[in-house]
Amino acid sequence: MAEVIIAVDAMGGDNGPQAVVSGAVAALADTDISKILLVGRESDIRPILDVLNFDNSRIEIVNAEEVIGMEEVPTVAIKSKKDSSIVVGLRLVKEGRAAAFVSAGSTGAVLAGATTIVGRIKGIARPALGVVFPNTRGYTFLVDAGANVDAKPEYLLQFAQMGSVYMEAVLGIENPKVGLINVGAEREKGNALTKEAYDLLDASDLNFTGNVEGREIPLGAVDVAVCDAFVGNIILKYSEGFAKGILSMLKEELMADGVSKFGALLSKKAYGRLRKRFDYTEVGGAPFVGLNGLVVKAHGSSNSVAIMNAVKQCSKFIKSDVVGKIRLKINAIESKEGNEK
Amino acid sequence: MAEVIIAVDAMGGDNGPQAVVSGAVAALADTDISKILLVGRESDIRPILDVLNFDNSRIEIVNAEEVIGMEEVPTVAIKSKKDSSIVVGLRLVKEGRAAAFVSAGSTGAVLAGATTIVGRIKGIARPALGVVFPNTRGYTFLVDAGANVDAKPEYLLQFAQMGSVYMEAVLGIENPKVGLINVGAEREKGNALTKEAYDLLDASDLNFTGNVEGREIPLGAVDVAVCDAFVGNIILKYSEGFAKGILSMLKEELMADGVSKFGALLSKKAYGRLRKRFDYTEVGGAPFVGLNGLVVKAHGSSNSVAIMNAVKQCSKFIKSDVVGKIRLKINAIESKEGNEK
Repeated sequence: MAEVIIAVDAMGGDNGPQAVVSGAVAALADTDISKILLVGRESDIRPILDVLNFDNSRIEIVNAEEVIGMEEVPTVAIKSKKDSSIVVGLRLVKEGRAAAFVSAGSTGAVLAGATTIVGRIKGIARPALGVVFPNTRGYTFLVDAGANVDAKPEYLLQFAQMGSVYMEAVLGIENPKVGLINVGAEREKGNALTKEAYDLLDASDLNFTGNVEGREIPLGAVDVAVCDAFVGNIILKYSEGFAKGILSMLKEELMADGVSKFGALLSKKAYGRLRKRFDYTEVGGAPFVGLNGLVVKAHGSSNSVAIMNAVKQCSKFIKSDVVGKIRLKINAIESKEGNEK
Repeated sequence: MAEVIIAVDAMGGDNGPQAVVSGAVAALADTDISKILLVGRESDIRPILDVLNFDNSRIEIVNAEEVIGMEEVPTVAIKSKKDSSIVVGLRLVKEGRAAAFVSAGSTGAVLAGATTIVGRIKGIARPALGVVFPNTRGYTFLVDAGANVDAKPEYLLQFAQMGSVYMEAVLGIENPKVGLINVGAEREKGNALTKEAYDLLDASDLNFTGNVEGREIPLGAVDVAVCDAFVGNIILKYSEGFAKGILSMLKEELMADGVSKFGALLSKKAYGRLRKRFDYTEVGGAPFVGLNGLVVKAHGSSNSVAIMNAVKQCSKFIKSDVVGKIRLKINAIESKEGNEK
């Protein structure tokens, strides 16, 4: 494999440059990433680097003076802040100077910037955010988890096509099972969006298994779960809160009587493993799919471990050539449709 | 309190008349319910009753020969099956012969029937399904959890008003905190529906605390969480699957090493209590709000304990006069708006 260079938004995320810079430096160990470009204010980044140990030739600062805040209107911010870490970082991908850009900053700004600067794959109506999350049997690719809160049926079809390619390319799942997130199993169930999307999915060459109800997703009924970003975001964040809530209720109950409390002490290792399975820092970043380049969103509240995992994950995405494979798939569909017309 | 008579759909639910009839009979113990009307095929109900012990004067069969299946189109089924358990049961409420109707049958059919037969409260655009579910600090009223998959902003405002009355009347929560389920905390976040609904909620006299993100709901951030039924249904069913999934992963991890396994044995009581907190059979039924009478939906897969709890819960709804209080609230809003015009 050629040199792998990853650009990282040093300014993004709730924990600021400290978490990002130390996470990025940590990502250099045990990886085939050749170099990391830290994009952001040199005056903020340098002091953090100064106290860390790393190979100087593998870290480079790319100065960007501006920062896009979480509360800014994405499209406006992208246009007006040309020297922001997000815009500069995305330009590195566009220009081929980096193979990927990782940011824990505003999802909306990264999406708006990526769509304008990196660009969509020809034929893709809207890029989407895909998140891989654990179910009882393995992993589900939830798409769209954060890009299009008002989606059209055609978008959902493309999300499914891209999700299917992702699960095959990155996780090696053959002919992934695709489900449409819906309020009932029957074809006629749902809202205006899902009713139309069902027909499109059913007519496609995907391994579409029909509607998937909320309760089946955590139990691993499908490999790719498709929805608009409103529903996807709610599911994603709800899971986070629910896992936290259930673990805190478990703790409460375990502490409520002496024997249970003693038992809990003995089962400490098991709880550690369970927590790990639900820890977003282990998951790493979420890729945008449908872009002409690799752009990865890390969780806003990423600590350095989460950043490290998100950066490391990029080398897996690059090796599996997920962007190239999505492009091929969409091209094939486009030309087939062209022939049929 | 006067005589309390509850009508129960003996034919509804995945577990058929057996679970419903035995659950209804069990509900007669420790309750102020005077009588239960079992609505359905007498030939199916009688043999089940024959082997149960109960006070004959407190159970009555109201014969209805037809059954509406889960796969039937609700509006069509309600019109064509006049002698179905759902239509006959709802008529008992309409005619004042029963104070409430409980069904574990098709949500769509119960809703369509209730809207036509029992009718909406004057001023209510759409009735909604409200579900009380546990959070780490108490309970959240999720509304709409199953009625309107394509909602309008005005509906969401009314759901919030009704949910607020519910939490105050039934659970005694003063000035309940109302949150709009959304993808971000900021006012401008969301899809077309939530953006408009935010303005309406913000201008209302409710204790509206703004948008509530998925992760905050299980942690008890609000007392009333408002959304359309698509989102509500996904949250509800997802929670069910997620709780099941996380408990099965916990079991896996506890069994994975000997010491943890031994600890788990000692903590058995704590696990029992945790399971109970997540057991839908404990929650009982979900009331439709906005109707001119009390109609309660029990979970489709209700066993006899769940039916018992759903029936028993009705006496609480009746005592708190939640229907009357919602009517008063909506009347007050209507006449205030009338005066302002």
